[in-house]
Amino acid sequence: MNGLFVSFEGVDGVGKTTQVERLRAYLEAQGRTVVVTREPGGTALGKAIRQLLLHGVDGGAVDIAPRAEALLFAADRAQHVAETIRPALERGEVVITDRYLDSSLAYQAGGRELTPEEIRSLSMWATNNLLPDRTYLLDMDPALSHHRLEHAEDRMESAGDDFQSRTRQAFLDLAAAEPNRFRVIDASQSIEAVWAAIESDIKELA
Amino acid sequence: MNGLFVSFEGVDGVGKTTQVERLRAYLEAQGRTVVVTREPGGTALGKAIRQLLLHGVDGGAVDIAPRAEALLFAADRAQHVAETIRPALERGEVVITDRYLDSSLAYQAGGRELTPEEIRSLSMWATNNLLPDRTYLLDMDPALSHHRLEHAEDRMESAGDDFQSRTRQAFLDLAAAEPNRFRVIDASQSIEAVWAAIESDIKELA
Repeated sequence: MNGLFVSFEGVDGVGKTTQVERLRAYLEAQGRTVVVTREPGGTALGKAIRQLLLHGVDGGAVDIAPRAEALLFAADRAQHVAETIRPALERGEVVITDRYLDSSLAYQAGGRELTPEEIRSLSMWATNNLLPDRTYLLDMDPALSHHRLEHAEDRMESAGDDFQSRTRQAFLDLAAAEPNRFRVIDASQSIEAVWAAIESDIKELA
Repeated sequence: MNGLFVSFEGVDGVGKTTQVERLRAYLEAQGRTVVVTREPGGTALGKAIRQLLLHGVDGGAVDIAPRAEALLFAADRAQHVAETIRPALERGEVVITDRYLDSSLAYQAGGRELTPEEIRSLSMWATNNLLPDRTYLLDMDPALSHHRLEHAEDRMESAGDDFQSRTRQAFLDLAAAEPNRFRVIDASQSIEAVWAAIESDIKELA
């Protein structure tokens, strides 16, 4: 059996976790071995890198340079691919990841001094050109996903609707550029309707 | 006054530290402000990254993937340039670094699954194309530098003469490829003779 690599993308609050679990259960019922993972921080090294990025060094804040930051994210992804994703695919398993390189591109779009092309080529080098076979973009108006996250206000504090709208658009632009890899799914539908769209698509692949 | 960026390269034991201090004293006597720094670990973030590379995560060994390792070294260098080197050069100061990107190229040559071209382009991106104005390669037969290091045996344990010879040759090849940037100095001479060679060269630059 051939390995299958699936990523879920989209802003926080669109229901990725629920659909990842639906897909896992579906594929396991088909007899597939499924590895569910996530970025960032899918490995021990990745967690340590995230620690550096979020909390600085020895508790002291460090002003991390944009290129150093991008390289640290890429190192996390390189380790994730080498340690977790590629070995599972080589064993013929299914890997489902909650976020992958498209998140780096969408979240860094517009914000930084680096271009999306630079971030992309860094990620492609880090992963030795490993792209998902399928990427499900769960797409929703930010006002709705914001509503779903009303009990998780801390995650939204530093990211207003404007940021969410730009990130959503960045994801849609990425999907438009790679229509063979992406499936854009309207995540404002019911959980059942979203899953039905994924199920009918995955049947062609798995 | 224009900034001036000088690196010293060469295998361990060739006397880089002594000559860095000679050059610092000389330039300060000329009224220049001099920043002496080193790679790896020239910044707080860099030290934390080195910690990860050398000691793994939470004391547990991690098998760091080659691309993740190269990206972590590049992140260290990116932060070093952004935090220390470039600001000093912009203030018109002299920066002298004990090792820079040529060390990554020389030490990784032959050993890894990555090509020198990949390591170089990663470093060039990390530093936003910042190369030294001058690189002094202190060159010596490994048997002699080994002798000088006889009191530092632990540094040599995992690196025999064969490795030292290959690394020396890699440095010489780098110097041959960029004759305008490099000066190769015979480090088997006396400290005074080595310094005289550097002094006569730096007069043209500083």
